[in-house]
Amino acid sequence: MDPCIFCRIADKSTPADVVYEDQHYLAFLDKYPQSPGQLQFIPKKHYRWIYEVPQMGEMFTIAQKIIRAIIPVLGASHVTLATFGQQVGHAHLWIVPQYGGGIRLKEKLGQGQRSDRRELTTKIREAIEKEVFV
Amino acid sequence: MDPCIFCRIADKSTPADVVYEDQHYLAFLDKYPQSPGQLQFIPKKHYRWIYEVPQMGEMFTIAQKIIRAIIPVLGASHVTLATFGQQVGHAHLWIVPQYGGGIRLKEKLGQGQRSDRRELTTKIREAIEKEVFV
Repeated sequence: MDPCIFCRIADKSTPADVVYEDQHYLAFLDKYPQSPGQLQFIPKKHYRWIYEVPQMGEMFTIAQKIIRAIIPVLGASHVTLATFGQQVGHAHLWIVPQYGGGIRLKEKLGQGQRSDRRELTTKIREAIEKEVFV
Repeated sequence: MDPCIFCRIADKSTPADVVYEDQHYLAFLDKYPQSPGQLQFIPKKHYRWIYEVPQMGEMFTIAQKIIRAIIPVLGASHVTLATFGQQVGHAHLWIVPQYGGGIRLKEKLGQGQRSDRRELTTKIREAIEKEVFV
């Protein structure tokens, strides 16, 4: 079994609430979000750091579409992006919806609002599909 | 006088330690860095949030080159990226060199290691020039 949790999510051996997927990239609900609707956006292939992804610009072009899709559907005021990467050694971008207060990001497990994950996943996935696949 | 500090840096009415510049984007040493060599990377044109920059992917393609250039010259272990944007309302990307410990990012003024800024600027600028303009 691949020891990298994000590789396992990418190859579907570990389930995740996937809201976006294409040939190279995957976005899913953070399991322990610091705000409702927080996403992890990853390359399917394993890279240690996001700037090692060969087409990092392309990845952020997709991230931009994801962000634009989720803000209205979540009612977020804006979105914060961050790459930390000390906890999971697989390149990832945090997409953190903000709701007015300005959440301080910490690289630790969040509060984990885990209710309504299925509904949230569906809502976000549909919004992204409209934004990306048109 | 434009009230936006990053617009003033972009139009050169406020000085900054510029390490990268092209037609659309500018990178400069953060005035109050949380780690040595921390950069702000901005579009010259004013946008409130980074995902409102029309070519956000292009901006991150350049960011990737900047990151790859600065890591060896600074002796950084890796780089953390973040967009906050509560303090300065002009789209910007934090490029924060990390030196092993994993600096917790806070959206506040850092410790401000302001010595040797000129030397640091030159060193970083030359490294970026080699990486980007080849």
